[in-house]
Amino acid sequence: MNSNPDPRAPRVEILCVGTELLGGRADGHAPYLAKRLRAAGFLVGRASQLPDDAGEIAGALREALRRSEGVILCGGLGPTFDDVTREGAAKALKRRLLFDPGLFREIARKLGRHGFAIPESNRRQAFLLEGASALANRYGSAPAQRVVLGGSRRPKLVYLLPGPPRELAPIFERQVLPDLKRRLARGLSVESFALHLIGLAESKAEELLRPVIELKRPWLDFTILASDGEIEFHAVMAGPSRSQNRELKTRLLRQARVLAGRHLFGMGEDSLEKAVGRALRRRGLTLALAESCTAGILSARLTQVPGSSRYFLGGYLAYSNGLKRRLLGVKAETLRRWGAVSAECAGEMARLARRRCRSSVGLSITGIAGPAGGTRDKPVGTVFFGLSGPWSAKTEAFERHFAGDRETIRRRAASFALQQLLRAIA
Amino acid sequence: MNSNPDPRAPRVEILCVGTELLGGRADGHAPYLAKRLRAAGFLVGRASQLPDDAGEIAGALREALRRSEGVILCGGLGPTFDDVTREGAAKALKRRLLFDPGLFREIARKLGRHGFAIPESNRRQAFLLEGASALANRYGSAPAQRVVLGGSRRPKLVYLLPGPPRELAPIFERQVLPDLKRRLARGLSVESFALHLIGLAESKAEELLRPVIELKRPWLDFTILASDGEIEFHAVMAGPSRSQNRELKTRLLRQARVLAGRHLFGMGEDSLEKAVGRALRRRGLTLALAESCTAGILSARLTQVPGSSRYFLGGYLAYSNGLKRRLLGVKAETLRRWGAVSAECAGEMARLARRRCRSSVGLSITGIAGPAGGTRDKPVGTVFFGLSGPWSAKTEAFERHFAGDRETIRRRAASFALQQLLRAIA
Repeated sequence: MNSNPDPRAPRVEILCVGTELLGGRADGHAPYLAKRLRAAGFLVGRASQLPDDAGEIAGALREALRRSEGVILCGGLGPTFDDVTREGAAKALKRRLLFDPGLFREIARKLGRHGFAIPESNRRQAFLLEGASALANRYGSAPAQRVVLGGSRRPKLVYLLPGPPRELAPIFERQVLPDLKRRLARGLSVESFALHLIGLAESKAEELLRPVIELKRPWLDFTILASDGEIEFHAVMAGPSRSQNRELKTRLLRQARVLAGRHLFGMGEDSLEKAVGRALRRRGLTLALAESCTAGILSARLTQVPGSSRYFLGGYLAYSNGLKRRLLGVKAETLRRWGAVSAECAGEMARLARRRCRSSVGLSITGIAGPAGGTRDKPVGTVFFGLSGPWSAKTEAFERHFAGDRETIRRRAASFALQQLLRAIA
Repeated sequence: MNSNPDPRAPRVEILCVGTELLGGRADGHAPYLAKRLRAAGFLVGRASQLPDDAGEIAGALREALRRSEGVILCGGLGPTFDDVTREGAAKALKRRLLFDPGLFREIARKLGRHGFAIPESNRRQAFLLEGASALANRYGSAPAQRVVLGGSRRPKLVYLLPGPPRELAPIFERQVLPDLKRRLARGLSVESFALHLIGLAESKAEELLRPVIELKRPWLDFTILASDGEIEFHAVMAGPSRSQNRELKTRLLRQARVLAGRHLFGMGEDSLEKAVGRALRRRGLTLALAESCTAGILSARLTQVPGSSRYFLGGYLAYSNGLKRRLLGVKAETLRRWGAVSAECAGEMARLARRRCRSSVGLSITGIAGPAGGTRDKPVGTVFFGLSGPWSAKTEAFERHFAGDRETIRRRAASFALQQLLRAIA
């Protein structure tokens, strides 16, 4: 569900260059840049992936400039023959590429400092578009570039950014975004908030939040993102005045929180694994796992959070039945009578993980991720969860069925386990 | 590194619709469709993400049709008010949207069959572009559509596909791709191959394969994809004749394999975890893990492969030092004297995982993923690996330093562990 923001909000487009982006590699820049730009009140009208071809780049840049006030080109600034973003931009803007000796010395210094010989190919990186400013790149040899077109009253801006993410992100955050705001969005006041929900489908979330969503204004932008049962609701307010935006934010946030009710678990840049971590720390609890079909996916998510070692101890990759028995201590009788994919086995796994790891909480997952292994009684997608904690002498067990392929089932099972855990300890 | 294929190859563009794709959600369709189309010999000139806005969709479709013979639109065919791909396409093609009673009955039947009431909004899904054919959607209510423009000698094709991946993929594979081949690429013969390499940087792979890459022809397309130390080399031959393509494929494949040498580990749709699985099975070996800083990432990768339970037993999420000692049995002395991030600890972890899980091979990872925890001697990114197997009485230990943020370090460490394992058992 979405409504588009004010058409008068400055429009920006993203062009990501690299033939690999048209051959199977996912573009990570466009989602990142679009999200940041929207939160800053810009209208992101389009994002595109282009091949390493100066003609294609020139065509796409010309078209984008007709529609937009700002264009961000990513990638193709390296030293090799197929890095042709500079040439494409020169063609589109009808500007020459000029060798900048100062820039070349800087590149040479950087490469020299790293102990490499300076290849002639790196000379290409020292060419700037006529009239462009170089933007310093602390983490790589290719400088970024910025060209300002048109008068200062209604300028159009073109940025050329290097492709490696650890070079692009700091240049974007420290130089490009502030520059865009100053030049295109002066006086534009923007407020935003994000809510994180669990325990409901995307359509249900839309229905629940409808009273907020229906408050349509041209400068109000709502988005619902759903993945594996976790929902993000984003609101951006880019109205005519700062006070109006703030007032609206306060009001909408209050209303949305009430509507979201018990489904709400976090705000802003939150995540389910962070919320679980906070709840565990707040209650002074530690956690141990026994993962079978997910085999580490849940643990990997929990430990994405820096500092997770304060509440997450570890546990068992109880993938084979042999290890469920031998390492964890699941009874042979349980496996024989109920099978490894059963409430009984899940419960025992959670209890044993808790006991052996001496954690306050034990959580287990065991199921059939497929494609093989399904039966009539327990089809592919059947997953059992066990949860054992100090709040009850009894171990809880849940059964759920997930649709999708092997990886989807495993991801959804890990997300569901986090949701059940949060519900229990929140 | 890339070179573009024959400009005479039929050109296709991909337009993915959904405001969420411009608000942080990554577009999964474009990489998938582009990869499949290129392997079939099409030139994928551009992929774009568009908002749920009929005007934007219409503009992008008009532009794409000027440049390309085929355009694939994904998403925005659902029943809600913001699903406007049909309207955008109608605007661009100057065609009406006509209600199709047969289609409506079919949609009603599908929804009825699933036990839902039939909402009026689903009526919208029964509208077809004037002159379009409906393409059956087995897995959802929204039918796909195809419009053929122009004469039969030089037709242009527009496809509207539903957004959910499990609906889109079968329609694309079974209906769209064969249709595109028949109508646009009749007589076009295509051969392709892919090599998977490890143990070298992307630039080094390019250098190594240069004799093949330099054999430039307008209808020869090479791509190198690198991620976390794993390299894919793709070659597509879409030359004038079938026999010429086959001959060239045989020759290039032989040459590329020789050039890749010991770095080559797989072909086609292979992956490092599959290659490891094959090698383990071939040698009749089983594997157990002890993961600390990666905390399940390696295990999750190994178990992505269906049937991995035949050689992967499981192991320990030895995240906390307490569990390293208590569960796994690492000596307190080792932890005190060398620390958990040391060759000694890694070696002991691998040996103990192997012994306790009764596997033939034990593999361990312990390191500092950051952002905190680094010291002068052991900065963030320092990771130790242990490997114990029947080929030697001695446990091997490796130390490596990885650049990047917490998740990058963890992913790279897991990939490096797989590479070392494969090297040992291949």
